[in-house]
Amino acid sequence: MPSHLTSLRVRYAETDQMGVVYYANYLVWMEVARVEFCKALGFRYRDMEQEDGVLLAVVEAHCRYRYPARFDDEVIVETTVAEANSRLVAFHYEMRLADGGRKLASGSTRHMFCSRAMEPVRLPAKYRPLFGIE
Amino acid sequence: MPSHLTSLRVRYAETDQMGVVYYANYLVWMEVARVEFCKALGFRYRDMEQEDGVLLAVVEAHCRYRYPARFDDEVIVETTVAEANSRLVAFHYEMRLADGGRKLASGSTRHMFCSRAMEPVRLPAKYRPLFGIE
Amino acid sequence: MPSHLTSLRVRYAETDQMGVVYYANYLVWMEVARVEFCKALGFRYRDMEQEDGVLLAVVEAHCRYRYPARFDDEVIVETTVAEANSRLVAFHYEMRLADGGRKLASGSTRHMFCSRAMEPVRLPAKYRPLFGIE
Amino acid sequence: MPSHLTSLRVRYAETDQMGVVYYANYLVWMEVARVEFCKALGFRYRDMEQEDGVLLAVVEAHCRYRYPARFDDEVIVETTVAEANSRLVAFHYEMRLADGGRKLASGSTRHMFCSRAMEPVRLPAKYRPLFGIE
Repeated sequence: MPSHLTSLRVRYAETDQMGVVYYANYLVWMEVARVEFCKALGFRYRDMEQEDGVLLAVVEAHCRYRYPARFDDEVIVETTVAEANSRLVAFHYEMRLADGGRKLASGSTRHMFCSRAMEPVRLPAKYRPLFGIE
Repeated sequence: MPSHLTSLRVRYAETDQMGVVYYANYLVWMEVARVEFCKALGFRYRDMEQEDGVLLAVVEAHCRYRYPARFDDEVIVETTVAEANSRLVAFHYEMRLADGGRKLASGSTRHMFCSRAMEPVRLPAKYRPLFGIE
Repeated sequence: MPSHLTSLRVRYAETDQMGVVYYANYLVWMEVARVEFCKALGFRYRDMEQEDGVLLAVVEAHCRYRYPARFDDEVIVETTVAEANSRLVAFHYEMRLADGGRKLASGSTRHMFCSRAMEPVRLPAKYRPLFGIE
Repeated sequence: MPSHLTSLRVRYAETDQMGVVYYANYLVWMEVARVEFCKALGFRYRDMEQEDGVLLAVVEAHCRYRYPARFDDEVIVETTVAEANSRLVAFHYEMRLADGGRKLASGSTRHMFCSRAMEPVRLPAKYRPLFGIE
């Protein structure tokens, strides 16, 4: 499964008084990248929620911060699927400055497929090939 | 109807690289104060949403910024009902530093009572006396 | 002075349990649009802060909400300068769905030019023509 | 070194359209708990930044999500120091519902002591005993 590149621009709102991006916002960027990754795979995450009632509930998140991103930086997030089966999917993210490629952070998230009632479900068959699940 | 005082502590996450609280966060504080105001009136906003399916959809918000709040400041928000009828309610907020009372900002929000489907509804009769609605 | 169009995609993080975008996030979008507007005028807001020590401190913000934006919607923000002199600048924003053009919200912000120490300053001469200030 | 308990109330702003708290906000809660933990140790983090120019730059964050927190829940965060030396400090966090004690999430953060210029520094001697550093 190929990786996907997402580009975003650091917002003023995302900085803190240290003059750099507040650490929780990297998880927001992972979400943005994940949603775009799904589009690249061939479906909209919004439709999966609305039409199939399948949600990606986060069960684990991790981020390692290497160099601080700053306001107005262009950031490239490279997303890959680290693991996938009909119960859960894990993504890995590499975040770099667009200008020069310096690595900012790397992270990962693990998700269980859930119903609206937050009960675990199996990923509907039509989505499985997209994640490389047999 | 009496006013209500809510106290909160400025979070690091709420600051930006200017070294002060990012302007959109004052609207979050208004929400926090509004929810506590409802509790002081005698009901939980969460219950109104869950049990009666009535939502307070914001139709207008305004804030005037006078002095910047900073990380770890204790802020007092004084909330009053500026207008209320069975269709809408408007709140007014005065935000001050707990230490010394310096005025930080004043704001207002207007809300329509809505159903989960975001259709306008009339406030259920049981809530009207709480807002001083005849 | 021409208006400027900024496009953004609604993030999951920006929604709330009402299923729509949380109201404070429209002010974040205004900031994103404002920063891009400055670029369209011919300068980077980041440089104005870093190199000239001039900050745009918000003194007032207003938003009127007409129709709720939802996750993954593409939103177009049209920004115009409503007022400008060497002491302050006011922006106006119209937010619409990219798909169909439905109006979501309109807003405005007023800013004083300030030093890093948050003291009012006059906008440096080199920036004045960009804002149409004589 | 004793642990410290911080209480907070889930804000509407912190929820997302899944009807639960958005995952990045648990990292904000860790920050709130960390700042209160420092106060319990005997100093204000704000003073350490302002007076000593020492910042806690996050180098790693992790969160394991067990049960979703919801709007208006009271959450208790129990903070402990997992590791500390003059170069870095690591915190561990247990997040539970105040009502019934159900575990919501557990997390950890690692920080390097840095100067304002984001260069690594050693923790000033006066703070070391507070963290149990010899």
